[in-house]
Amino acid sequence: MKKNASSRSDGRNADQLRKIRIEKNVAAAAAGSVLISCGNTQVICAVSVDNEVPRWMKAQKVSGGWLTAEYSMLPYSTGERNRREVASGKVGGRTSEIQRLIGRAMRAVVDLEALGEHTVWIDCDVLQADGGTRTASITGAYVALQLAVEKLMKSGALKTNPIREPIAAISVGVVEGRPLLDLCYTEDSAAEVDMNIVMTASGKFVELQGTAEEAPFAESALKKLIALGKKGCAELLREQQRALKA
Amino acid sequence: MKKNASSRSDGRNADQLRKIRIEKNVAAAAAGSVLISCGNTQVICAVSVDNEVPRWMKAQKVSGGWLTAEYSMLPYSTGERNRREVASGKVGGRTSEIQRLIGRAMRAVVDLEALGEHTVWIDCDVLQADGGTRTASITGAYVALQLAVEKLMKSGALKTNPIREPIAAISVGVVEGRPLLDLCYTEDSAAEVDMNIVMTASGKFVELQGTAEEAPFAESALKKLIALGKKGCAELLREQQRALKA
Amino acid sequence: MKKNASSRSDGRNADQLRKIRIEKNVAAAAAGSVLISCGNTQVICAVSVDNEVPRWMKAQKVSGGWLTAEYSMLPYSTGERNRREVASGKVGGRTSEIQRLIGRAMRAVVDLEALGEHTVWIDCDVLQADGGTRTASITGAYVALQLAVEKLMKSGALKTNPIREPIAAISVGVVEGRPLLDLCYTEDSAAEVDMNIVMTASGKFVELQGTAEEAPFAESALKKLIALGKKGCAELLREQQRALKA
Amino acid sequence: MKKNASSRSDGRNADQLRKIRIEKNVAAAAAGSVLISCGNTQVICAVSVDNEVPRWMKAQKVSGGWLTAEYSMLPYSTGERNRREVASGKVGGRTSEIQRLIGRAMRAVVDLEALGEHTVWIDCDVLQADGGTRTASITGAYVALQLAVEKLMKSGALKTNPIREPIAAISVGVVEGRPLLDLCYTEDSAAEVDMNIVMTASGKFVELQGTAEEAPFAESALKKLIALGKKGCAELLREQQRALKA
Amino acid sequence: MKKNASSRSDGRNADQLRKIRIEKNVAAAAAGSVLISCGNTQVICAVSVDNEVPRWMKAQKVSGGWLTAEYSMLPYSTGERNRREVASGKVGGRTSEIQRLIGRAMRAVVDLEALGEHTVWIDCDVLQADGGTRTASITGAYVALQLAVEKLMKSGALKTNPIREPIAAISVGVVEGRPLLDLCYTEDSAAEVDMNIVMTASGKFVELQGTAEEAPFAESALKKLIALGKKGCAELLREQQRALKA
Amino acid sequence: MKKNASSRSDGRNADQLRKIRIEKNVAAAAAGSVLISCGNTQVICAVSVDNEVPRWMKAQKVSGGWLTAEYSMLPYSTGERNRREVASGKVGGRTSEIQRLIGRAMRAVVDLEALGEHTVWIDCDVLQADGGTRTASITGAYVALQLAVEKLMKSGALKTNPIREPIAAISVGVVEGRPLLDLCYTEDSAAEVDMNIVMTASGKFVELQGTAEEAPFAESALKKLIALGKKGCAELLREQQRALKA
Repeated sequence: MKKNASSRSDGRNADQLRKIRIEKNVAAAAAGSVLISCGNTQVICAVSVDNEVPRWMKAQKVSGGWLTAEYSMLPYSTGERNRREVASGKVGGRTSEIQRLIGRAMRAVVDLEALGEHTVWIDCDVLQADGGTRTASITGAYVALQLAVEKLMKSGALKTNPIREPIAAISVGVVEGRPLLDLCYTEDSAAEVDMNIVMTASGKFVELQGTAEEAPFAESALKKLIALGKKGCAELLREQQRALKA
Repeated sequence: MKKNASSRSDGRNADQLRKIRIEKNVAAAAAGSVLISCGNTQVICAVSVDNEVPRWMKAQKVSGGWLTAEYSMLPYSTGERNRREVASGKVGGRTSEIQRLIGRAMRAVVDLEALGEHTVWIDCDVLQADGGTRTASITGAYVALQLAVEKLMKSGALKTNPIREPIAAISVGVVEGRPLLDLCYTEDSAAEVDMNIVMTASGKFVELQGTAEEAPFAESALKKLIALGKKGCAELLREQQRALKA
Repeated sequence: MKKNASSRSDGRNADQLRKIRIEKNVAAAAAGSVLISCGNTQVICAVSVDNEVPRWMKAQKVSGGWLTAEYSMLPYSTGERNRREVASGKVGGRTSEIQRLIGRAMRAVVDLEALGEHTVWIDCDVLQADGGTRTASITGAYVALQLAVEKLMKSGALKTNPIREPIAAISVGVVEGRPLLDLCYTEDSAAEVDMNIVMTASGKFVELQGTAEEAPFAESALKKLIALGKKGCAELLREQQRALKA
Repeated sequence: MKKNASSRSDGRNADQLRKIRIEKNVAAAAAGSVLISCGNTQVICAVSVDNEVPRWMKAQKVSGGWLTAEYSMLPYSTGERNRREVASGKVGGRTSEIQRLIGRAMRAVVDLEALGEHTVWIDCDVLQADGGTRTASITGAYVALQLAVEKLMKSGALKTNPIREPIAAISVGVVEGRPLLDLCYTEDSAAEVDMNIVMTASGKFVELQGTAEEAPFAESALKKLIALGKKGCAELLREQQRALKA
Repeated sequence: MKKNASSRSDGRNADQLRKIRIEKNVAAAAAGSVLISCGNTQVICAVSVDNEVPRWMKAQKVSGGWLTAEYSMLPYSTGERNRREVASGKVGGRTSEIQRLIGRAMRAVVDLEALGEHTVWIDCDVLQADGGTRTASITGAYVALQLAVEKLMKSGALKTNPIREPIAAISVGVVEGRPLLDLCYTEDSAAEVDMNIVMTASGKFVELQGTAEEAPFAESALKKLIALGKKGCAELLREQQRALKA
Repeated sequence: MKKNASSRSDGRNADQLRKIRIEKNVAAAAAGSVLISCGNTQVICAVSVDNEVPRWMKAQKVSGGWLTAEYSMLPYSTGERNRREVASGKVGGRTSEIQRLIGRAMRAVVDLEALGEHTVWIDCDVLQADGGTRTASITGAYVALQLAVEKLMKSGALKTNPIREPIAAISVGVVEGRPLLDLCYTEDSAAEVDMNIVMTASGKFVELQGTAEEAPFAESALKKLIALGKKGCAELLREQQRALKA
């Protein structure tokens, strides 16, 4: 296919996602797991379930279960090796921000009451980083969680499905003045505006985080980015169902 | 004044800010400082300037200066005492997220090149917390920074004003189905949707972070929240100028 | 006023305190609080009360309550910015020493048994540092604690006043061979001997810490410093009562 | 095949390895990588190369390069979720011991001088843990390192192959009085004696660590375990070459 | 005595131990203690006993007691001062490895069930380091433990002696191609192979850790080292009894 | 000897020191060392010398050398085992306070300029704790430092003796209304007032720290305590010289 002036470095159109691949059950000891690939970005998403809830829930006598997420970049996920955070003794600011986002997003579509006295852990470990790792984590986490829920329902550990509806996430941004869907690393590094959008199957927003990286942006740009994000999430939600049925 | 059905617990209309007060130069050793009050929320914003840049800038040979922010809740800013983070040995996830937001927002309106080889520190310490501490921090930080810049220009340490334009921030949210401007703590705790908006004097967006706290939200709600946020920021930008001229 | 040969850089006599100002209730969420100014030194002293006692007291079945203090220098309290201790992950030696002193001093005039099962926290945050921050913290802490006790007695949380008597503290030192009361930062930096004295309204000593900074000192110097300290504490104890009655 | 009395829970003979699988280049950003499976034990081994050496080498003016290893269990590698070490702020004793072993073993077959001024990082992340993760890490690490060296020689970053000879490792142990090769987790948990053996293609020992888990062992048992280990390592060394040629 | 070609720098034969001295009860507050000297290596080994077991034993309802070890190098044990580990905030990899070895070795000869609900702490602090500190620690720890057990049995805290049999440890190695017993620091630094051997009075192995420091070693070398180790442990076991009887 | 009504639990008079013993050169790798015993309190004091100064001295271009102290309680120095501080990852408040005191006291009698570009480390490790460990540390540290200086002068590393004069320290206190010299642990625990006094051979004060443990104290008590402290330090200074000459 001939690349025209408006195509991107990898030949995609402005509103085109990278190729998605979702491999199921890559971590056999987990309750549910996937390896999600969005172009060159690859994330292992795995769900573990504990038979107890965090201390603060017991102390505050909150009923139901809890769901939380952890995120890390494997050291070899980037060309230049990425130092393990344990080496500095603490979770960095970026990691903390991302894992809080993933947890918050997943809790927005899960009925914690229906989890019973369990803690659901969603671990997202980036095997290869090429932009959009946090949104790929959320998109993959939903599939891993659905797999885990199916297993737990089969074993009788869960009575009802606590997931209210599917959820997916995508990045959008303005690069050289042009709104683009699903930024790869080089696009992300050059973006004037960067936005992450998390949406549900019913077309609603769960999270929307837009940041002016270089220059404040007008409301017109905001509107275009939201439209691109909606399109991307809708496609990802279809890919998730395709993977689950495969 | 008679409270009608649509008024809020503190008698405000849905689109009404809390009372703003900006006291200048509360920390005499700082280059610039303010105590900003938004209703019962009170934050000390203070600017310090170092005559060197972070090591990573030197290593990567980035020219110009740097601006960064730190945020903390003073232990007595909440009714129940808030443990100092040094006691746990690390900056918590929420704090890290907030100080990254403040720093990013301020850098979006500052010409780092024009700072020369200086690091500008913006410290935001919450003296009293009643919702909206991160947005009050940004709104106050701009005034403190402007005061610091004036001082540095007078002393000759800065040749030109590195601030491109004023910036302010506000929270908006949906409470009991109703979009509200400038949530206090009890409103924030009950909010279904919570959004922080950072805007410039030219009416552009610097940051926009919307989160479904309880249920995903429709695009129609998003639009109303953005409109409220624009109104709130515009008013805050006027209050900042009033304070600077006083 | 003409400065004579024996006057200090700020015109004070050797046995003269800096100007004291005590502003009450500066932190509305605290049980009691003041902003104390001793010349250019300014400290926020705030009291919070927890409805439980430390674990070690429960483990050792010690009855009554506990009182403890924390101290910090706000980053912008000094001309050159003072790094937050959380950044290094631990409370520094100087901070630890000072907060132990404040806690010990306050416990010496409080009947812990009468506190009931409460922990009283005294937080001292230095807003501006110009020498004598630890003694200003103690002097201010007494007023904040008295305010908190009055509030707790009014609400019925405390039956009796656990404070046995007022307490105040001051620094003295030998500078260029001359014993001086209430050293400011430049005097403190040049002092050959440095001493902190904590006394009660009944004229007794609670703590006395004298250090030879440059050269060991004779007993005659010690006597002169103690006499200056007694005079200073007596005046501060009067200022405290004046502030409480205002 | 009929299981006789002497066969193990998974039907293997006492001197039989679990099934080995070595998948190459699973982490595309790394210089070399494999996913090694030994039965249900699965480890990602990846090699990254830095263009500098550790500070202590520069300080001590040691010439040549450095090679070091890091090891972690991914949280979902075990049935019950395994807490990330960053959560406790430090590398645990077991992890530290294992990564020191891997690094030491690999350095024993690498000519550090021939590495030039590079640091080679070998990261081993356990995807599924069923006994023998440290020995699988070493066996996989050699293949990943060989792949990395080939790449670096092709690119000209390395002139000569610094690897002196292939290396592999295996666990052996005494279970219910019977010496066994390649213990799975349930065997390892029940073992009276546990030994890890690291050998080279030339049939020499690099490391030998035997531990009496329940009762001290006689020299006769030691001899049988060493013989089993030699057999196992020889087979693994053949599997490595098969994988490299595939 | 004339040194022949085959003697070592300190005149010892290849299979000769350094001079052993065991001074009892050097730390009067401990339940049992010794200062063991192996040539210039000196280690304080002291036993303390707690009247409770670790939390994990309670949680997992494991009956009996626990025994654990801690090891440190005193800062002045080496010519160049050795930084305290608390200064870096964590136990280093080498220390962790050594204290795990000491604890494991001692547990191999102790009937934990017979300890009752006690935790036995074995602390080994190196006063002077000249090679073989970990093996001297184990050899000394046995004597200190025996002393502690005698005291506890006398006081009635222990009913039966939980020690199954005596235990000792020694290092062996290959230096300039020659197998040597009990390496001092300069020999250890130059060793091609380094091995630590822990044995019981009944002539069985508890731990055996051999490492190729410079080049992989053949099975013939392994056999010679094991023979040297057996000889050394047998002599140390005699020295322990001599000290206990003195 | 008949104990009269006024004698202490160990038979001493109110103004009597415990028995002092100073054993020299207990840590052979140190530049100088002693084991000082004051009754049952035993402290290892050892001096190490680095051939460089701290980074802050280089940064601030301060000439001369530096002297600093570290203090720790060995785990077995108390009847109930004392947890190592590295286990909690940080130096505790009490330890920090004590090591700052020791360092400050020793620097008061040392000419840092005369040290040249060296850092002198004084390590004080408590082998047995029975009250007065910080004052025993200072008294022992002087002897260890003198031994180190002699060695360094002999080797030519130091040209002149940087020690200006001998220094010693003692505790005094009020127990059951009675001023006592050199408190043991049980006296210290029951003391109403506790004071540490550091003095030089010329009879001057270096440090004086008095604390009301239970009740504020009058100036008359202060005078008696100072007199006792002077007597105690004078005797200790004689013991130091006796030990140095032995």
